Amino acid sequence: MLRRERTAVGDGSSLYAVRMKTGVHRFGMRDPSDVSELAAAIRRGTIDPARIVAVLGKTEGNGLVNDFTRGYLIQSLKQLLGKHGDKPVYVFSGGTEGVLSPHYAVFSVEDSSEKGNGALAIGCSLTRDLRPEEIGTTAQVRLVADAVAKAMQDAKLSREEVSFVQVKAPGGNSNHTMALARVAGAFGAGVALGEIRDFEESDFFRKLEKQSPRASVSSGIEITMCEVMVLGNSAAWSGPLRIASRPMADAMDLDAVLGVLADLGLQRNAQDLARVRAVMVKGEPDAGGRVRGHRHTMLTDGDMNAQRHIRGALGGLVGGVFGDGRIFVSGGAEHQGPAGGGLVAAIAEVR
Amino acid sequence: MLRRERTAVGDGSSLYAVRMKTGVHRFGMRDPSDVSELAAAIRRGTIDPARIVAVLGKTEGNGLVNDFTRGYLIQSLKQLLGKHGDKPVYVFSGGTEGVLSPHYAVFSVEDSSEKGNGALAIGCSLTRDLRPEEIGTTAQVRLVADAVAKAMQDAKLSREEVSFVQVKAPGGNSNHTMALARVAGAFGAGVALGEIRDFEESDFFRKLEKQSPRASVSSGIEITMCEVMVLGNSAAWSGPLRIASRPMADAMDLDAVLGVLADLGLQRNAQDLARVRAVMVKGEPDAGGRVRGHRHTMLTDGDMNAQRHIRGALGGLVGGVFGDGRIFVSGGAEHQGPAGGGLVAAIAEVR
Amino acid sequence: MLRRERTAVGDGSSLYAVRMKTGVHRFGMRDPSDVSELAAAIRRGTIDPARIVAVLGKTEGNGLVNDFTRGYLIQSLKQLLGKHGDKPVYVFSGGTEGVLSPHYAVFSVEDSSEKGNGALAIGCSLTRDLRPEEIGTTAQVRLVADAVAKAMQDAKLSREEVSFVQVKAPGGNSNHTMALARVAGAFGAGVALGEIRDFEESDFFRKLEKQSPRASVSSGIEITMCEVMVLGNSAAWSGPLRIASRPMADAMDLDAVLGVLADLGLQRNAQDLARVRAVMVKGEPDAGGRVRGHRHTMLTDGDMNAQRHIRGALGGLVGGVFGDGRIFVSGGAEHQGPAGGGLVAAIAEVR
Amino acid sequence: MLRRERTAVGDGSSLYAVRMKTGVHRFGMRDPSDVSELAAAIRRGTIDPARIVAVLGKTEGNGLVNDFTRGYLIQSLKQLLGKHGDKPVYVFSGGTEGVLSPHYAVFSVEDSSEKGNGALAIGCSLTRDLRPEEIGTTAQVRLVADAVAKAMQDAKLSREEVSFVQVKAPGGNSNHTMALARVAGAFGAGVALGEIRDFEESDFFRKLEKQSPRASVSSGIEITMCEVMVLGNSAAWSGPLRIASRPMADAMDLDAVLGVLADLGLQRNAQDLARVRAVMVKGEPDAGGRVRGHRHTMLTDGDMNAQRHIRGALGGLVGGVFGDGRIFVSGGAEHQGPAGGGLVAAIAEVR
Repeated sequence: MLRRERTAVGDGSSLYAVRMKTGVHRFGMRDPSDVSELAAAIRRGTIDPARIVAVLGKTEGNGLVNDFTRGYLIQSLKQLLGKHGDKPVYVFSGGTEGVLSPHYAVFSVEDSSEKGNGALAIGCSLTRDLRPEEIGTTAQVRLVADAVAKAMQDAKLSREEVSFVQVKAPGGNSNHTMALARVAGAFGAGVALGEIRDFEESDFFRKLEKQSPRASVSSGIEITMCEVMVLGNSAAWSGPLRIASRPMADAMDLDAVLGVLADLGLQRNAQDLARVRAVMVKGEPDAGGRVRGHRHTMLTDGDMNAQRHIRGALGGLVGGVFGDGRIFVSGGAEHQGPAGGGLVAAIAEVR
Repeated sequence: MLRRERTAVGDGSSLYAVRMKTGVHRFGMRDPSDVSELAAAIRRGTIDPARIVAVLGKTEGNGLVNDFTRGYLIQSLKQLLGKHGDKPVYVFSGGTEGVLSPHYAVFSVEDSSEKGNGALAIGCSLTRDLRPEEIGTTAQVRLVADAVAKAMQDAKLSREEVSFVQVKAPGGNSNHTMALARVAGAFGAGVALGEIRDFEESDFFRKLEKQSPRASVSSGIEITMCEVMVLGNSAAWSGPLRIASRPMADAMDLDAVLGVLADLGLQRNAQDLARVRAVMVKGEPDAGGRVRGHRHTMLTDGDMNAQRHIRGALGGLVGGVFGDGRIFVSGGAEHQGPAGGGLVAAIAEVR
Repeated sequence: MLRRERTAVGDGSSLYAVRMKTGVHRFGMRDPSDVSELAAAIRRGTIDPARIVAVLGKTEGNGLVNDFTRGYLIQSLKQLLGKHGDKPVYVFSGGTEGVLSPHYAVFSVEDSSEKGNGALAIGCSLTRDLRPEEIGTTAQVRLVADAVAKAMQDAKLSREEVSFVQVKAPGGNSNHTMALARVAGAFGAGVALGEIRDFEESDFFRKLEKQSPRASVSSGIEITMCEVMVLGNSAAWSGPLRIASRPMADAMDLDAVLGVLADLGLQRNAQDLARVRAVMVKGEPDAGGRVRGHRHTMLTDGDMNAQRHIRGALGGLVGGVFGDGRIFVSGGAEHQGPAGGGLVAAIAEVR
Repeated sequence: MLRRERTAVGDGSSLYAVRMKTGVHRFGMRDPSDVSELAAAIRRGTIDPARIVAVLGKTEGNGLVNDFTRGYLIQSLKQLLGKHGDKPVYVFSGGTEGVLSPHYAVFSVEDSSEKGNGALAIGCSLTRDLRPEEIGTTAQVRLVADAVAKAMQDAKLSREEVSFVQVKAPGGNSNHTMALARVAGAFGAGVALGEIRDFEESDFFRKLEKQSPRASVSSGIEITMCEVMVLGNSAAWSGPLRIASRPMADAMDLDAVLGVLADLGLQRNAQDLARVRAVMVKGEPDAGGRVRGHRHTMLTDGDMNAQRHIRGALGGLVGGVFGDGRIFVSGGAEHQGPAGGGLVAAIAEVR
């Protein structure tokens, strides 16, 4: 269990006053303790550790309750970043099934002398520590909603401009409490974005029409507070990066994936695909046990958890389109987009 | 372990003399003992059990040594088919990871009054029982090569016309002997198709350029002989069905999958996709541990076998293109197409 | 899913009128379809298939929802037994973790000319088919209670004489409904044995003091009704076999295992252990996450189900005492003996 | 991958000149990053971090190639121990199946004013870093043999006095190289102890009579050199602790476990068992697929690795005897004691 001090990230610090360009750099790992690629980038001066606001990545654990690779990577990153290590929001999802590749994307807020041009904007914030009994409750919803609102404000993102909200929540110690934590996180994002107006806890897992199609929520035992990262294209930010996102109707929604590519103005060729800086996918096995009318076996497999099934399938689909396994695929999309579906988003350097 | 008598299938029986049309029907299952959909089709007269020559399917086991779902389904099909149950070639692959759906395709040779028009042709044959020490050796290669040649002759398919050769081999009792059995099967197909001219056992797993890009080989403990099914489009056969196949360069080769669709003259829309009758994919995790330059974790995962990883990823990719999880995806593509890649094939009713 | 006709077993048939000796024979398997050892015993005349009343065994699946090895073995046994195949009660538990060995024990009621001497008695019965919505409810409790009472009556076993009640229940299609089915089975046995006097469904999983320390309940998708087997030593039965059983306080209760051996008058040496004919164990991971004060990880392991953990541990303990891996170890002991513990029983030919 | 400097441990440092008493303290963990119990013991003064020479423990990963819990715990311990963190030998084995409990035992060399009385002695040493191509070769054997000899010399242990040699070796990146690393470690210990006189690499996995029944070897990707810990009762050491060890003939060898308890002069009651400070077990699934004549399924299970099977079974057996799940059970006992068997050892405060 990692503890952290609440820090200046997203607290209206001067970091956000004039610097208005988002940097996104992606790094691979040999194992969850390997932060050598980021270390080299810092040494070369490519990244200023003082300006890192978020790290989003996939580690090679099982992504379930007993996945300690997320905490191991965070501990390793903090050792590397030293005094800057407590600032960033860390969002890691375990499970690199199939063609998925362990990696992390480092988000920084950089100096810019250019005028705002609708570029990628980022806002991050933390809630206070949650008490165990608050996980998966209205209390968590409220805390997350406030944190999302705060991050939007710092990033000068309107509700309409937001493309993608990532929430990482403390997960309790069972797969069920991990799911509850995701649901409360999704409701929190939905409330902040105006997508969900009123709710009760009894809606959780039941009123599936109450959803946030721009939210992606992970949970894990390695944190004690909720961590929030909000992304969108903002008139106030500059630089070459843009984000696009689309809901996925189901786990086979190739059109949504191709649509995101098109939204970014990119073709599916090597030259254009090299402009992609990050891809995020959220999805879930259809609870009715069917995909496009045919029975799937994800929910009844006693050997391989449903989350591992769906991540492997989504990784195969989205990885095939982008030609790259460095995709943040996270299972458990309850109330995050259509039931049985999810969300796909990508960040690229546009032409 | 299922024992069977060598029967008339592929033995130059009169079945092949004048009947020159292939039927392909796909059925779902509630579990590996559920053959009710085929039973209903037989009752309705849609399928004549006397004319079934092959059944190809996916069951929901782990696809590894201790996967008994394949044998269970075969036992159930034989109970249903009664005196006709020993004739067909049965090719089952375990493992319906991700969006894959348990199903089986029944291939029959039907009467036709039409002239041959380059339609889907099928030939099936069996080898004799292999002795355990023959699995994965030159002896198996020779037996498979002869069986493939026999099936081609019966189906009046030239080497060039063959699109897809499916071999099911007895698998020994370890993952290693299962792999060896696949390799010897691939070499057998390659020899019969003229793709592999000379070879030694020391080439197995080593000379990866010796390959059969039209072969798909599975192995399993539930059979004692090799079973062969050869498919192609033949001038001597009639009917609306056609097959197309392409090698896959790697596990992300979306172009190959889209190419097969194009080869069949189909668009990726609901109307055209409804014409698809069967999809077959063969692939493997890249042995070098990388896909398109990025590290994958399929080969070092102690909890989830590499075969389960690759099937889930390929199912996600190919299922997304066809909008259907009823895909015969089989892992273990050693010497079957490019290393780290594989093969994709589809059968459809063309316009 | 296997369907069966309700048959004469336990229906007060003449089988029970004068024949008063229990036969127990144990057989190994190469795989879940291998019934050759029983076939040989029938051919030799060792076992009369007409007198088989129950088969209790372990198959090598995962013992969870998608374990089809149980159904596969039942289908294979029925093929072998032909017209006698619908009579016996079949109780199979999947999962032969660690030193456990796939096997089944065949129970028969045999002719005897001797006077009753307190020997092993067996009674079997079936409930009607359960509707899916009845699984895990008061309805199932009542049906099981009636079936246990009926089996006791047929076997002329008083409540005090009963040592072991095995219930196999239909399991629904999730691990949760499988657990519910076990609980309702345990309450049914407890009601019949007078151990549980009143109950409500809200007691399930909660009032853990309501328990039947002589009940062992499995559930699985392969059956549609509850099957009951009651064992005890009865003044009305003759022969050399006796049964003993003890509750296990926790998963480390070596004293209980040694106690059962002592109850049977046996020493832990090769000669005495060769007299053992069957061993049955039921247990569960402690829900509080601790065994004798130290944290266990059975309930938080995302790769290996808790049932597989506990069966492996109990198999190691009990197998070590009996020097034999042919033990019916079944996980999921909710309300069957002490919470976190379970039950151990053995049948032996006494001196 | 953790790197370390070769340090003074076992380098004939003054630590060993006059201090002649071994301390053994066992601690639990909430997760692999939790070193709070040791931290508290250091704060209380119970343990002097400068005198810690070895830490031996079980973490809750899968114990296979992709188990990162071992490295995570080492990183956490080093953070806690600060400048003293590079000195100890760290031997961690992943996998707390069944009743096993995550824990670690801290071994220290403490001041003693008493005369030597045959008490527990400990010697530790490290080899240099191994090159990847040296893993599992004669080169590793020689390095380990030298390190064991050095540790014996420091601890003033004769060959006959040695009870238990623990070797932790770098494991390469496949289950096969992990096994090779264990074998070379076992040969190294055997050479140092005079149990193996001559050998060739071709003996590995083949000449099973070449073995070291006092060696326990683990391998893992988290280290780059071999780490050695030698334990025995020495006339030169004082204090109340003693060690006893016995080979296990097979995975059901309850007599060996009870024998170790007897060797320590302890009864199997709560009072005596509270005197136990550490238990170590090494074992393996019988390669012939049988335990005491009955088929086991450990080697053909595609869902659960054989190491997880055997650890769960041995944990059940040995945990039952000692009434405690804090047992260092390590699978993979090639050439470490009888084939299909292994080794059991315990340390206790004698009366």
